[in-house]
Parts: sequence; structure tokens; C-alpha cells
Amino acid sequence: MSEKKAVVLLSGGLDSTTVAAIAQQQGFAVYALSFDYGQNHRIELDFAKRVAAKLGVREHTVVAVDLRSFGGSALTSDVPVPKHRTAEAIGHGIPITYVPARNTVFLALALARAESLGATDIFIGVNALDYSGYPDCRPEFIEAFERMANLATKSGVEGRTRITLQTPLILLSKAEIVKVADKLGVDFRLTHSCYDPDPDGRPCGACDSCLLRRKGFEEAGVVDTLLS
Amino acid sequence: MSEKKAVVLLSGGLDSTTVAAIAQQQGFAVYALSFDYGQNHRIELDFAKRVAAKLGVREHTVVAVDLRSFGGSALTSDVPVPKHRTAEAIGHGIPITYVPARNTVFLALALARAESLGATDIFIGVNALDYSGYPDCRPEFIEAFERMANLATKSGVEGRTRITLQTPLILLSKAEIVKVADKLGVDFRLTHSCYDPDPDGRPCGACDSCLLRRKGFEEAGVVDTLLS
Repeated sequence: MSEKKAVVLLSGGLDSTTVAAIAQQQGFAVYALSFDYGQNHRIELDFAKRVAAKLGVREHTVVAVDLRSFGGSALTSDVPVPKHRTAEAIGHGIPITYVPARNTVFLALALARAESLGATDIFIGVNALDYSGYPDCRPEFIEAFERMANLATKSGVEGRTRITLQTPLILLSKAEIVKVADKLGVDFRLTHSCYDPDPDGRPCGACDSCLLRRKGFEEAGVVDTLLS
Repeated sequence: MSEKKAVVLLSGGLDSTTVAAIAQQQGFAVYALSFDYGQNHRIELDFAKRVAAKLGVREHTVVAVDLRSFGGSALTSDVPVPKHRTAEAIGHGIPITYVPARNTVFLALALARAESLGATDIFIGVNALDYSGYPDCRPEFIEAFERMANLATKSGVEGRTRITLQTPLILLSKAEIVKVADKLGVDFRLTHSCYDPDPDGRPCGACDSCLLRRKGFEEAGVVDTLLS
């Protein structure tokens, strides 16, 4: 039987690290893909490299693609990242940390990598519950992308290989993700969730992403070793 | 009335140049987007710049995105570009000049640019008739991408702006495209179609793209001033 290959989008965050561990547990040879897209929190790439090394993935590639020149987000400009928002505020509307069409661009590049590798699966750690209200994290977006992907590619047209988008976290709460990660032995100290870390990569503790992470660990009853 | 903005994918080829001219004729402020993606025929970017200047587009951006490291195509590797193929051969199967998921990546970046600009339309010069058999030039791919795009974006979700993919050439023959371009006053000398030009940008005359171009001009009864 030939080897199963998967492209896994890896930011170095808790969610994508957990997804990479899941893909490995499912027997895939993991080809991790990270993006140097002009993000202020570029230090996440250092975390992604350490996560990839710890997991022992088959390959880890960092692709440069300049989304900063397009603007439109606090993550790729000097616009301040919102801090200390309540859970209710986080749950409503699309915040300024949304990067225009980011997951579409990342998945398109993952599709290009998958097709050139002959990989059948693309894993992405999107989550539609405890998330920041991003449109490109919803199941209907993922389904539409998968449909498009199988019309876009040579392998799809020739009927040889179908591309499947795997979103194992999409319907989990943050607490459930923490529990899955803990069970798989994810080293939380190597993961990075903050939108606005200090120059050494230490989390701010107050952006939406830090708040959601803290809430998840608290509800799961698991210690976040990144903070301890 | 507010200005209509369109993102136009511009390679500097005959088709995309014609599409940019069409978008301008329709009253759009044109934001042209070209890609430095690791193509061997990178010289096309010089043509794209001259075309953009001649048309007087609002903005012309060249985005770097490395598809060469992924491989899988004669256009991004040392694999030779096929030459002197017959019209029958060109019409069958997907050739080695196909770049995995290229139009998906280009359209994803166009979507990111469109959303950050507040543009409503994306123009792409794909063609499903006299083309090279690429899966990502077919109407069903374009429709699936448009559907996905309107689920992917903030503007789509908030119901403010719908993104429309405009493919004015999709059902035209190459001869019909030449006639449209001629009518719009496209300066053919500034356009570039060849997959394997010499170092000065002169076309090889024998790749699929050169052969399709020549056939188009002959059938249209128009002189290709690039060659004269």
C-alpha cells in the first residue's frame, strides 16, 4: 500500500499543532506548511519550526506570500490589536484581526503543494465554535473550498485523486481541543497563540486569542505549561 | 455614485491584456495584479508592466509567491516545454505546462486584494475553447471559486458586497479574442504569450501558446505586430 500523504497548515498555534498530531496519529506522512505573510507576530514561525521538529513531520516548508502590502487587518498593519474584550464581544461580528481572504490564500497554496506531492488530504485547524468570528473558519466555507479544489486540479479532473479537506477541530470547543491535544501529548510550551506577543514571543494575555486559549485550558482543567 | 473597482489578473499575455482593456471600457478603475511565481518566462512581468502603463491602469502590483519550490510543471522547472505539437494533441489531456493549482492561488490573492480594496469584481482571462486543457480554465471551476469566495470573505458574510468573477473571454475562440483586442486598440507588440522565450523576450514560435496565438491571428485575419 502506498504511503498516505497530507499537507497540514501549521501556524505553531495550539489548534494547528493539535491537527498535525491528529494527522500523524491517523497514519499520514505530514508535509507541514507555514506562511510568512507579513504578520506582526512573525515570531510564530519560530514556534512552528520547533513544533514541526518535535512532531518529526516529514517536511516543513515556510512559504513567503506578502499579504501585508494589501493591508486591511490589525495583524498585518500598525492598527492596534483589541485587548481585554469580553466573551460576548468576541462572539459578535468580525474583528479587525481578520486578514482578508487569508484562509483562502493558505488553502490555495496547500492545494498547490498537495497536487504537486500527490497528497490526498489537506488538514486545517479551523474552528467554528470558540473562534473569533472569521468567515473563513465556517463549515460552509470549507465545503465550498473542497468542491472548488476538486474542479481546479489535474488530479480532480482526471478522477485519479480526490482532495479531502480535513477539519478535525471544526465543531470542538476550545476546552475540547485542549483535551484532545493533552491526550496526544502535545507540548503546550512549544505552541503560540498570541496576536501581539512581546519581542521574545511571550503572549500578551489580553488579545482575543490569548483570552480564548486561557478559557479553554481553564474549562478543560489542564495546566497551560506555556504560561507556567 | 462611488467608483467601481476591479482587480484584474494581468500576465502581460494577449488574453489578460484584452481583459484589462475590457474592464476599463466597462468603467472600472483597474487594479492590476501580476505574479512573480518562479516562472521560467519571468520576462512576462516586463511586458505586464508596459501593458499596465500603456493602458493607464489605476495600480499595478507584482506579488511574489513561490510556486517553483513546489514543482510539478515545465513552466517552473527545467523540464522542457513541449514544442511543435499539433492542434489535435494540444486539444487532448492536460500538458506538462499546467502549474498545480495556479489559477486557484492567483484568484485567492486577487480575492484578498479585492476585499482589502473594497472591489466588487475580479477579471481573469481564462478561456475554455482554444486553450491548453487546463482544469482551472473551465466555467465550472470559475463558478465554484466565485461561490467559495462569497463564503470566505467578511463582505460576503455581512452581505455588503458580492464578489463577481468576470471571465469575458471564457467562451471565445482565440480568433474572436484577437478581434475584440484589435477593436479595443490593444497594442499587440506589448503582449507576450510564449512559454519559452529567448533572453530578450522574443517568442519561440513553437510552444502551445505560440501556436494557439498564431492560429488565432491567422483565423482573425489580423496582423500580429509582435512578430512583424
